[in-house]
Amino acid sequence: MSGDILDTNSATIAQELKNIGVEVTRRVTVADDLQQLIKEINQISAQADILIINGGLGPTVDDMTAQALAKAVNRPLAQHPQAFAHLEHWCKHRKFELNQQNLKQAMLPENCRILANQIGSAVGFHLNHNQCDIFCTPGVPRELKPMLESEILPAIKKRIPDSLKVDICRFQVFGIGESSLQKLIDTNFPNWPEEIELGFRAAMPLVEVKLTTRSQSATELKGLWLEKLQELLGDHIVAKIKDRAEPLAAQVLKLLKDKKYFITTAESCTGGLITSLLTQVAGASAAFEAGFITYSNKMKTELIGVKKETLNQHGAVSEAVVVEMAQGALKKSGADLAIAVSGIAGPDGGSTEKPVGTVWLAWGSNEKILTQCLCIPGNRYYFQQQVAAIGLDLIRRFILNSAQKPMYVKTRGVPAIKTKNEV
Amino acid sequence: MSGDILDTNSATIAQELKNIGVEVTRRVTVADDLQQLIKEINQISAQADILIINGGLGPTVDDMTAQALAKAVNRPLAQHPQAFAHLEHWCKHRKFELNQQNLKQAMLPENCRILANQIGSAVGFHLNHNQCDIFCTPGVPRELKPMLESEILPAIKKRIPDSLKVDICRFQVFGIGESSLQKLIDTNFPNWPEEIELGFRAAMPLVEVKLTTRSQSATELKGLWLEKLQELLGDHIVAKIKDRAEPLAAQVLKLLKDKKYFITTAESCTGGLITSLLTQVAGASAAFEAGFITYSNKMKTELIGVKKETLNQHGAVSEAVVVEMAQGALKKSGADLAIAVSGIAGPDGGSTEKPVGTVWLAWGSNEKILTQCLCIPGNRYYFQQQVAAIGLDLIRRFILNSAQKPMYVKTRGVPAIKTKNEV
Repeated sequence: MSGDILDTNSATIAQELKNIGVEVTRRVTVADDLQQLIKEINQISAQADILIINGGLGPTVDDMTAQALAKAVNRPLAQHPQAFAHLEHWCKHRKFELNQQNLKQAMLPENCRILANQIGSAVGFHLNHNQCDIFCTPGVPRELKPMLESEILPAIKKRIPDSLKVDICRFQVFGIGESSLQKLIDTNFPNWPEEIELGFRAAMPLVEVKLTTRSQSATELKGLWLEKLQELLGDHIVAKIKDRAEPLAAQVLKLLKDKKYFITTAESCTGGLITSLLTQVAGASAAFEAGFITYSNKMKTELIGVKKETLNQHGAVSEAVVVEMAQGALKKSGADLAIAVSGIAGPDGGSTEKPVGTVWLAWGSNEKILTQCLCIPGNRYYFQQQVAAIGLDLIRRFILNSAQKPMYVKTRGVPAIKTKNEV
Repeated sequence: MSGDILDTNSATIAQELKNIGVEVTRRVTVADDLQQLIKEINQISAQADILIINGGLGPTVDDMTAQALAKAVNRPLAQHPQAFAHLEHWCKHRKFELNQQNLKQAMLPENCRILANQIGSAVGFHLNHNQCDIFCTPGVPRELKPMLESEILPAIKKRIPDSLKVDICRFQVFGIGESSLQKLIDTNFPNWPEEIELGFRAAMPLVEVKLTTRSQSATELKGLWLEKLQELLGDHIVAKIKDRAEPLAAQVLKLLKDKKYFITTAESCTGGLITSLLTQVAGASAAFEAGFITYSNKMKTELIGVKKETLNQHGAVSEAVVVEMAQGALKKSGADLAIAVSGIAGPDGGSTEKPVGTVWLAWGSNEKILTQCLCIPGNRYYFQQQVAAIGLDLIRRFILNSAQKPMYVKTRGVPAIKTKNEV
């Protein structure tokens, strides 16, 4: 309640339940207050099929789950022989004395069923009240997880009728925001079947799209609509999500490794962010040897051979400069592919001609270098994150040999700015 | 509710409120279900003084906070001119079309007061119902924080009677964890006065230390104990927090600018992270021109002149190599100071002699280069974040000319590993 500890247990519980098709509909967090706890248990157990209580099983006075539950279900607290045996064994194994504080952890509502704790001293327990299955679990994340897996999920699974089982498929999209995705689908598929639930989740810089079906017939229908959706979104789809979602850079590295390509970077306005995203992925060395952060004009010239005249004629944020940056980085590193960026991250440095948010990108190989100017206003952090992600996406599309124009080029693209020195 | 996103906003809100002496007593999370939302708003507003609703302000159909609140307080939804103007401006600035989906974000309960959103499209809003102040806030953490600070906390502060007001002073510490800090203080100050509450909060990689007093006399006493604490922690204290906490890199850049120093980087295992942290700070160009990400041995040699013999004799993760990396980066960039790192981020690449987590750092100037070997086990992400932060901290201490040994060198330091070729 104080915000000192981030609650990761709620997310763990929700994720594990979702995997078996059970949705969490409500979550309440309360302070260590006995009356409030009793009230919540009474209210929730009258409405829900399943109540999972997390935390409050410890030995100290502020741990009061067992006490509150006993009051709520109107059963006395009694020493549970199985819980006592666990405690005795746990303490003995660690050469601890079983003291009065610890003994409290064996005082549970009468006739409850024990949920084994493979790690800690606090056993979990289960009972049924108001036709609601109540599971009390320890607050320590390392103790909660195995208890969920081996004790609680199997018990809940047994209660789920076949008719409520769900089928979920998820994929990642880059370059189209949630509201634009919604609009695109509404416009192109006015007859989208209601039984295939569509969900979107921003996982910056990606959006996760989820198709959920809750019946055999809907699941069979899903294949066809998934295909239509994939066709509509084309190369905006970065990957299908199997178990865990992976970052954009991991997808780029996979493609690079498949083709045995090495990549290099020449970054100005993103200041190392693209390189950092790539090297956050384990095994990046299979496709990455060197990156150049050339922040000043002088360094662009000295380190990667951008010509002084090019800088003077066109300015650092220009097509000519990013092309020379990409070429220079390719030459110096011997890599197969390069991403080069130069832009105005702000808050200062903008002009009428090139406002804050203007960025030139160049990407490609020694044989073919492509360029694009975009305008991405917003703050410095947002600009850098977006430009880095777009750089990665452009090289992803380059490797895929994609002929499609990404949405962000359509909406954010800026025609080449000609200066008076240009032809 | 699905567990896909960890709820950090609740913790942020609780922390910020605690800073002004307000305790959160209950937190409810519900699914995107209109009836349930209305019910919760009704129940809570009948009992609480303040209700902060977070999330559900987006453009899609599953965002229904405004709709639910309107129903709960029995007011119609109406287009709010101020919200509309914000949306129009927001879209125009980004060259987005203001579509029907976005317009939904301007449909708010009649006669509510707008809470400005400095970043995103969704304005917040406030109204009073059942004598409860209800604040609706955006779910995006970066948008929530400034809205809390500039709109909500000042409004709540006004409601707090003088007798409940608190005095808080905060500072940032790097290199000592929360529990070590507690132990250090317990050991050194057994008579720490009870009326000066000590609080710690991990704000990775920093820890925020907070001293809270709730009476005039305690506040007067605080000065003395604050001084003692500052003496104990020495240069582990990075900065006092005035309004907003600033990242470690911002503190380093401030020091660099004060001294008119330029800094360069030569990164291997951190792969651009140090450079990226520096360039995330606005105005970094006043102290940074170039960084070198030399991931492979070949690039260490070709780009920054690390000798092949040094690499062969000592291996890439060695004192001799990081020294040559720092020297090479200084020479190539013309900077005054350098940070160089080479280590084993894992999960692969470790050996018995140099396990995963081993890292050599070199830092300093052309006149004086210091080195240190550390072992930071954990996963790749944690390793990279820690090493980058330590690199920044070591250069901070170098600029400060600090004679104190940081705690992490005492606890994580590894004596130089001599290979048979070394003297």
